[in-house]
Amino acid sequence: MPVETIDRSATDMKAEAAQVSADIDAFFDGLLTPVQDGRERLFAAMRHAALGGGKRLRPLLTVAASRLFAIDRDRALRVGGAIEAIHVYSLIHDDLPCMDDAELRRGKPTVHTVFGEADAVLAGDSLHALAFEILADPATHEDPWVRSDLVLELARAAGTSGMAGGQMMDLAAEGQALDLPAITRLQQLKTGALIEYAVEAACIMAKLPADARTPYRGYARNVGLAFQIADDLIDHNGDTAAAGKPTGRDAEAGKATFVSLLGEDRARQQAQMLIEQAIEHLADHGDEADLLRGIAQYAVARNH
Amino acid sequence: MPVETIDRSATDMKAEAAQVSADIDAFFDGLLTPVQDGRERLFAAMRHAALGGGKRLRPLLTVAASRLFAIDRDRALRVGGAIEAIHVYSLIHDDLPCMDDAELRRGKPTVHTVFGEADAVLAGDSLHALAFEILADPATHEDPWVRSDLVLELARAAGTSGMAGGQMMDLAAEGQALDLPAITRLQQLKTGALIEYAVEAACIMAKLPADARTPYRGYARNVGLAFQIADDLIDHNGDTAAAGKPTGRDAEAGKATFVSLLGEDRARQQAQMLIEQAIEHLADHGDEADLLRGIAQYAVARNH
Repeated sequence: MPVETIDRSATDMKAEAAQVSADIDAFFDGLLTPVQDGRERLFAAMRHAALGGGKRLRPLLTVAASRLFAIDRDRALRVGGAIEAIHVYSLIHDDLPCMDDAELRRGKPTVHTVFGEADAVLAGDSLHALAFEILADPATHEDPWVRSDLVLELARAAGTSGMAGGQMMDLAAEGQALDLPAITRLQQLKTGALIEYAVEAACIMAKLPADARTPYRGYARNVGLAFQIADDLIDHNGDTAAAGKPTGRDAEAGKATFVSLLGEDRARQQAQMLIEQAIEHLADHGDEADLLRGIAQYAVARNH
Repeated sequence: MPVETIDRSATDMKAEAAQVSADIDAFFDGLLTPVQDGRERLFAAMRHAALGGGKRLRPLLTVAASRLFAIDRDRALRVGGAIEAIHVYSLIHDDLPCMDDAELRRGKPTVHTVFGEADAVLAGDSLHALAFEILADPATHEDPWVRSDLVLELARAAGTSGMAGGQMMDLAAEGQALDLPAITRLQQLKTGALIEYAVEAACIMAKLPADARTPYRGYARNVGLAFQIADDLIDHNGDTAAAGKPTGRDAEAGKATFVSLLGEDRARQQAQMLIEQAIEHLADHGDEADLLRGIAQYAVARNH
């Protein structure tokens, strides 16, 4: 790509990322209206986790992929909101003392440190259910086949063959020296499946048959893996303030990461190569894919 | 009802309850095939909780309500399996040390006492996602409107306005003296919503419009409340071996229950009245409602 195209995509990407963040906040703000009947703490805990933080990478991917198929942006945002609800629930549960025992997330104290463990478990469970409530609502899409498919694929991305399965592998790997194929597989489940779903959701809304989704899933798989390598680099080099969470924890826990296995330089090269491959998958598209290209570039250029 | 009719429904009820229990076990056994890739413990924890225990009241209700509309039993069983997955997930999370801190459930040690807390959180989360994966699968129903509606109503029954909301109310009520309306509202969310859904799911599969579902939801609401009163009576009087979990815990925790508020005799009368009302809602039906009538009788007659 010529330099001015990359610059334009980067500017567009930052503007759209900021807009999606604001829109997702407004979406959760509207859904999570506090009540005064014994469930106050539940709503407060859900709002603490879901509002005002995070990169909102997943909804941004859904909005960006929706541009390829001229899908209504509001519709993409609702689906992106459901995906973010799943992501936030997983962060709440992963941060629990019995899991990663984290005190800081997105620059704020974690839910259980503020509200206690019981509220954190329930806030996560409630966001989990909320995601499916959003997707199955006729307001999300008028075609019930689309709604049903969105639910099916999200449930797969969240369950044993996705996020929860990956987190289990991660816990089981403590104190073990995983190799590169094992780390890659772990990442594909733990974080890759939901990132892939964020792009595939736009394909589902566009009613693309499964085999026509291949390049977009390829794009998402490459970006997801590059994003994880970048995360490992940030954990390896970054500072807590920029990351919004403690860094250096993987090394402390003796966990193998892409950086510990490849070394810093090769990890960086690998991420760059994945991004080039990701963009290659979009070769049939013109300007309408610029936002996806910008996100891919950002995935490795960021420092938080 | 003449005595012989009650006897016949009771016999039919016991036979069908045993068959549904066996079928739900087989269903979970087929879905939860253990893997050898770092997720062994996750599947083992899910199987520990989901297989071989419990009354399977909710799937039994779905199978029974499906008889009213001549819905295929296998289809009702799949939906009942999804509901049971949600129920089991909620038991795993409710039993956690940060929640009710329970050591015994369905006559077995709770998931976290056997597998640890992290695995218990993840096993619950995985069963939660599995429920929606089952419902959104075309194998459950060929009509995507039905699948989408099944998902939407289950998500509502599980989330803040259902099970999770009720559990939060229950936690928030510790050390407080709730009155009868407050306890009733708490029960309607915490256990009532899912029991009501178990019956409504059959109405959704039968494509009944919302207003035609009223009597069946009324039946389920009465049975759910009666079931909770019976549970409170068992907790008050029962022995641990029969209940499959420790009893007397509500009194220990200083929690108000239907029994502590009404006294034992009035609580028993109230449950009986609710069952009569539940059966009244089925007045337009003949033999095809006998199983639902039998379940209502059993809800209060049981001692575990």
